[in-house]
Order: sequence, then C-alpha cells, then structure tokens
Amino acid sequence: MAHFSVAVEYAIHCLIWLADQPDEVALSIGEMAFLQGIPPTSLAKIFPKLEKACIVSSEEGIRGGYRLARKPEQITFLQIADAVEEAKPVFDCREIRGKCGLFGGNVPSWAKRGTCAIHAAMIRAENAFRMELEKTTLSVAIESYRRASPDSFKRHVDIWIGNQLESRSTRSSPKTKNRGTGQ
Amino acid sequence: MAHFSVAVEYAIHCLIWLADQPDEVALSIGEMAFLQGIPPTSLAKIFPKLEKACIVSSEEGIRGGYRLARKPEQITFLQIADAVEEAKPVFDCREIRGKCGLFGGNVPSWAKRGTCAIHAAMIRAENAFRMELEKTTLSVAIESYRRASPDSFKRHVDIWIGNQLESRSTRSSPKTKNRGTGQ
Repeated sequence: MAHFSVAVEYAIHCLIWLADQPDEVALSIGEMAFLQGIPPTSLAKIFPKLEKACIVSSEEGIRGGYRLARKPEQITFLQIADAVEEAKPVFDCREIRGKCGLFGGNVPSWAKRGTCAIHAAMIRAENAFRMELEKTTLSVAIESYRRASPDSFKRHVDIWIGNQLESRSTRSSPKTKNRGTGQ
Repeated sequence: MAHFSVAVEYAIHCLIWLADQPDEVALSIGEMAFLQGIPPTSLAKIFPKLEKACIVSSEEGIRGGYRLARKPEQITFLQIADAVEEAKPVFDCREIRGKCGLFGGNVPSWAKRGTCAIHAAMIRAENAFRMELEKTTLSVAIESYRRASPDSFKRHVDIWIGNQLESRSTRSSPKTKNRGTGQ
C-alpha cells in the first residue's frame, strides 16, 4: 500500500475544482464527487479535515458548500497531505537498540544515547520528501489543468454548475445544510 | 501507520550485527532475534527478501546462518528498504482526471495527456526521499553503533556468539539447516 492513501489525490483534485469557481460559488460534496467520478462518502470524511486545517471554509444553506479558504498559491501539497493523512510519518522508530537480549532488561545508558543512526537517516529522507511537497502549491496544479482543458469543456462545467445551483433551491428548504448533500 | 513497517528497522539492525562478525561467522535467525529482542518469526520473513536482493547470503549446516553478501559501504538504506518493503510507492496515482462525470464515460484525449501534475509532484517528492536513502550506507550506521558501544559490551557479545556457535553442535545434526533455528 502506498504511503499516501487515495484521499490525498481526491483532496487535491477537489481543491483544483474549487479554485476555479467564482467567489460566490460554493460546491457541495455531491457536486465535487460527481465532477471527479469518486465516492461522496470519501469526500465527506476528507473535507472536515481540510476545513480544520483552514484550507477550505464551509457555508450552510441552499447556496452552501465548500470554498477555498486561502489563495491557491498559499496552499501547498504538504499542507493538504498533512491535513488529510494527519501528518503520517515515513518511519516510526521503535528504539530497538535498547532491546538487546544481552542487556537482560537492564538497558545501559549508552545504548539509547542520542538519536538512533537509522532513525536519523529516515528523518533526513522524510525532510527531503516534505520539503519537495512544500515547494509545490495548488496554483501549480491548477495552471497545468487550465492549460490541458479546452474552453468548450470549461463552458460545459460552468453550465453544469449553474444548473446545479439552480436546482438546489427546488430540492432544499432554506434550513437545509447543503455541505454534504447530493449533486 | 508509517510508510515503512518495523521490518525495515529490524532488517537494518540485523545487518549491523552481521557486519560486525568475522568472515567465518554466520548468525542464525534465532541469534539475531535474541540480540535485538525482536520476534524470530518476523526475521524469518525478512531474511529471504534480503537474500533475494543479494544483501545477505545464507549457508546451511551447523555453522550456517546469514552473512552480509556485500561490504557495508556497498549496501544503502534504499536497497534494504526496497528489498524489505518490495519498493512500496509513496503515491499510487488513480488517474482521477479521467473520471469526471461530465465525460459520461467517454474520456477525451486531452484529459489524460502527459503525466498528471499531482502525480508529477509526488514523483519529485519520492525521488528526493529515495535519493536521501541512497546516500546513506550501512557503514554509516555501523560506525555510529561502534562508537556508542563500549569495549566491554563488544567482548560480552563475542563471548555470547562464541558460546552459541559451540552449543549449535550439541543441538543440531550435521544435516540440519540452521538458518531459521533458535539461538
């Protein structure tokens, strides 16, 4: 199994869609799930984490849903991954150096002095990994997607989202919380 | 759960012990497990992988067990981790960009052209991580452990290993395969 679950990929793709909306538009979990062909149940678990990390904000009501809470250039892949995966480490040192059977349960002080050389190497590798993810902001991915998709598709998306916002009022009462509802 | 399982830590610690043995000494799974206070069942799964990756070699018989197959400075942490974890990736791209509901199952060619920008960023981060692990050889960790442990402990280890090798002949017949047996 990969270090990052598919939730990181889902999250970044959703944030790209959110970044392309005008300020007045918030997308629901159901809308984002449809736009990416992914399960809304997964997104319903991911978005509270992104909100807790101040990457998105939510609004309730008929026009409610999620928006980016910061500019795309202020959101790094590292922040997204840490929010979704809750800062999962690469290596979890068990301090095996103190468990030698010859110690007979009486661990000498020298055995666990300083950082274990293995752990230190893993920390260096993890830092290199995190620094690279810190360098990449959401705006880099957005730029790439904007270049790839033709204007005709962008218009198709705008029309579909417009229709969704229109149809929400026929499906929801003013008091309905819309963050997690369908398309 | 961390990216690397505890098996990577077990493997590197074992290899450090093996590196400190004279050429004629091969350690059994049981001996290495005792020296580190870890389960022999775990090591019995790890060592065939290290052998397949030509990091250790094995020998059968009363004096049998495992030895390093290469010099410590020729064994990198990356090689060990890849052998034990079977080159587990950091990110497993699911090509979500081709699943948009608006495509209606008819994915346009532009949607999946080139490498996904998210995947590309993850590959860069993974490469930085792997390059750092490639830089660290087993000899670096060995040097650190040699500096840390006092001569009195090294003598204690040598005597214990000598006794183990002696006692093997009383426990095993000449035809016994000793790689996976007890201390």
